Amino acid sequence: MFKEEIKVIDCTVRDGGLMNKWQFSETFVKNVYNALADAGVDYMEIGYLSSKDAFDAKVYGPWKFCHEKDLKKVIGDKEKRIKLSAMADIGRIELEDIPLAADSSLDMIRIACYVHQVDKAIALAHHCQEKGYEVTINLMAVSTVGLRELNECLEDLNKSKVPVIYLVDSFGAFYSEDIDTLAQKYIERLPGKTIGAHFHNNQQLAFANTISAIINGVNYLDATLYGIGRGAGNCPLELLLSFLKNPKFKVRPVVKCIEEEIFPWSQKIDWGYSIPYMVTGTMNQHPRTAMALMESEDKDKVLDYYDSICNGGATS
Amino acid sequence: MFKEEIKVIDCTVRDGGLMNKWQFSETFVKNVYNALADAGVDYMEIGYLSSKDAFDAKVYGPWKFCHEKDLKKVIGDKEKRIKLSAMADIGRIELEDIPLAADSSLDMIRIACYVHQVDKAIALAHHCQEKGYEVTINLMAVSTVGLRELNECLEDLNKSKVPVIYLVDSFGAFYSEDIDTLAQKYIERLPGKTIGAHFHNNQQLAFANTISAIINGVNYLDATLYGIGRGAGNCPLELLLSFLKNPKFKVRPVVKCIEEEIFPWSQKIDWGYSIPYMVTGTMNQHPRTAMALMESEDKDKVLDYYDSICNGGATS
Repeated sequence: MFKEEIKVIDCTVRDGGLMNKWQFSETFVKNVYNALADAGVDYMEIGYLSSKDAFDAKVYGPWKFCHEKDLKKVIGDKEKRIKLSAMADIGRIELEDIPLAADSSLDMIRIACYVHQVDKAIALAHHCQEKGYEVTINLMAVSTVGLRELNECLEDLNKSKVPVIYLVDSFGAFYSEDIDTLAQKYIERLPGKTIGAHFHNNQQLAFANTISAIINGVNYLDATLYGIGRGAGNCPLELLLSFLKNPKFKVRPVVKCIEEEIFPWSQKIDWGYSIPYMVTGTMNQHPRTAMALMESEDKDKVLDYYDSICNGGATS
Repeated sequence: MFKEEIKVIDCTVRDGGLMNKWQFSETFVKNVYNALADAGVDYMEIGYLSSKDAFDAKVYGPWKFCHEKDLKKVIGDKEKRIKLSAMADIGRIELEDIPLAADSSLDMIRIACYVHQVDKAIALAHHCQEKGYEVTINLMAVSTVGLRELNECLEDLNKSKVPVIYLVDSFGAFYSEDIDTLAQKYIERLPGKTIGAHFHNNQQLAFANTISAIINGVNYLDATLYGIGRGAGNCPLELLLSFLKNPKFKVRPVVKCIEEEIFPWSQKIDWGYSIPYMVTGTMNQHPRTAMALMESEDKDKVLDYYDSICNGGATS
């Protein structure tokens, strides 16, 4: 499906970093950067934009902060090869810690927020726009939001100057029918704005739901190398680029980078489809209990986990 | 989505057996049998129906043959708890080796065939019907079949007495749009017949495409425990039953059986999404070269494999 408006945003370092506290080496990030540029991907989300005081730099790697000096190391002396994005969480970044876009290697700042934080997110987004950045607001966990609340939130976003609003399936709970319904609602209620999609793979539906989003007119598409990301992971970039017929996209650099950089990480951290993540997805819950199980010695005791989530004990 | 007409067929032993030459223990098959019955699954496909001379019983386990004595061991002394199905390949079963349904524990025989074998498949299916079995024809690899050929084949099937015809994505090459197009064509050209779906997971789309099939009116749905099956595997049964809202289906027995019987096998055989299977899926090819790679020491050398499949050598 060739649609010129489509932009692909790779979140490998940002979302994958949720699994290793952003402890990716400079070489890893450089190689991902070059692979994404070679593949024709539109944006690389290279991490979170956080204030120094918000997290302990001894625990969290540089991509939790995205300081300009670290971005510069990746880009090197040559011209920047791909637009860079960073995600900002409400309350984790002070306004004065955001440089002017003219002084930064970042092109885009994406504000992640829950529905109840939307006013703060709009204020932060407008601030970033004034400093010269492209911005998006990524409205998380909408699978748990009531209809009235969602409508009000979309009304606020509609009045804002933020040009790109994301439909996010934080819990991997949505079926394609949900994507049809919600994408159509976002497009209807946010006239003139671009809609984005960020989906998780708890039910092996992140790629399929991204296709549904495309069919419904969503044009900003998130993916990661080999699906790396929190818990069940994300829409795999190699599948998405294979599906998109735009000749600017190339799969080979992605396959090369997966072999060289992602396979070694797949030996050290554990993302992707598994029964605990499937359970939280189908139950529309945050994956934190599943992640705790997967990091424990009891990771294969999935029946006990299923019972604890479904009903606090076995009944059948 | 509650649709009373929907039947779920578990292919764990039959399709999973492609990965271990059907060397599942009697205990394994018994436990799967009871789990599927507890879960409300409609059919258990317990293996292939093959003549003794077609395969070496020293190499292939009992579920490659489905002899009545082996079926009886699984069922035990009590009443059969779930309908049993076996698959028959053209040329691998002599007519005289098929017992009367009245003398067999099998309820259904599913004939797998390529388009060029459809006349033989119909003859075999009619023979099985005359012996008292339910029958289906599973038309394989339609992603590689030309339009005229497919139309002629569907015309032949339409004239037959076979009541259930399967849409099969042997190579995991289809997107949901393909399922929409083909399911609608099958339904239109096979009036009065039931359509089934059997999909492979090369692009993480087996479950999503099964949902698309349901939405298009397909009512026989194949799945396996934890997606076990050839290469990238199948639609995971636990996901399908979670999606179907029919109260007769229960997920818990499936989760229990996955923990007890499938996790141990996942240590011994390697099915599921991986780059080589993704490559054959996107290239619409049989997975045999990917399976050979995955069984070799070079399984992680995916870039060389990608190049060999795409263009016989690196070009970029």
